[in-house]
Amino acid sequence: MDPKRFAQQLQFILEIDKEKNILRQTHLSGHGRQENDAEHAWHMAIMIYLLKEYANEPFDVAKAMMMALIHDIVEIDAGDTYAYDTTGLATQKEREEQAADRIFGILPEDQRAELRSLFEEFEAFETPESKFAHAMDNFQPLLLNTSNGGGDWKAHRVRKSQVVGRQEKTKLGASEIWDYTEQLIHDHVAKGNILDD
Amino acid sequence: MDPKRFAQQLQFILEIDKEKNILRQTHLSGHGRQENDAEHAWHMAIMIYLLKEYANEPFDVAKAMMMALIHDIVEIDAGDTYAYDTTGLATQKEREEQAADRIFGILPEDQRAELRSLFEEFEAFETPESKFAHAMDNFQPLLLNTSNGGGDWKAHRVRKSQVVGRQEKTKLGASEIWDYTEQLIHDHVAKGNILDD
Repeated sequence: MDPKRFAQQLQFILEIDKEKNILRQTHLSGHGRQENDAEHAWHMAIMIYLLKEYANEPFDVAKAMMMALIHDIVEIDAGDTYAYDTTGLATQKEREEQAADRIFGILPEDQRAELRSLFEEFEAFETPESKFAHAMDNFQPLLLNTSNGGGDWKAHRVRKSQVVGRQEKTKLGASEIWDYTEQLIHDHVAKGNILDD
Repeated sequence: MDPKRFAQQLQFILEIDKEKNILRQTHLSGHGRQENDAEHAWHMAIMIYLLKEYANEPFDVAKAMMMALIHDIVEIDAGDTYAYDTTGLATQKEREEQAADRIFGILPEDQRAELRSLFEEFEAFETPESKFAHAMDNFQPLLLNTSNGGGDWKAHRVRKSQVVGRQEKTKLGASEIWDYTEQLIHDHVAKGNILDD
């Protein structure tokens, strides 16, 4: 064991503990409290495993799960940007790249490069792993919000075009799950949980 | 897509959301709130990936990560049993097996068998994946507790023999990490965070 290398690994492990304090706009099922990023990533990784049969193309399940587990680490510095916050979205990329420099920079060089590359691959939305991970990143809060009668959309007065704009990218990774999502959105609009526009 | 199968998968995904409400005795770094099971599992899975080079023997990293992600699902029904709660430990096995029947039972049969088998493999502590996952299950709260000056041990007046009794199993999965752990325990005893016995 190289003590310096091990110390860097432990420092990173302790640093990412802070992700448990980054709150999202989504609420837990049963009209619970706001969800945090670490819980969301845990849920997403299990969903990738359980729903892999619905992916449009074959993909490396372990790689997509690891991508899901680390995709929100940058929010320790950059904060959570709500999917429908246009001001926040304008600066999100820059804030998250700076955060990636600092946080992944704590790791030994080989692991820094490995996790950074996985994070960039997720962001680029080009590989089968990234597309399926993004589909689960969309579908997970949709399921929780649906279980709560669409409360998160109602609280933010979200419009149908906004939800579709985000969720329809699910079809790039899992077209059958997008078909199901489209029906759910339709039902939420009919009930007034999502505003028609 | 088989609608019945998909409905079972979604019901399970929603059911395990409850794991985010199961609190552990460990506190987050920075003298934070109590950690929950889902966050703990997320942290453990990333640690398995980052610290895999210290495993005593080669193992399937993806399998061990999935094992970590699901190992506490049974606590939705059975509750968290503190590592040093002898009364709770006496009935833990039975309570967790009943919980596994119910919760994994929500899944379609093939996935039910797959996750149940993974859970039983973790519990049996025999394979390289299970041994390394257990090492991280021990090491993760130890790191958080160390960062908080051993506050969780002090609150429960935990004795050295209890900590060693649990933590020394880490050596079955990662003997170098056990060496590091042993030194940490020694330091905590010297500081009075852990009671000498």
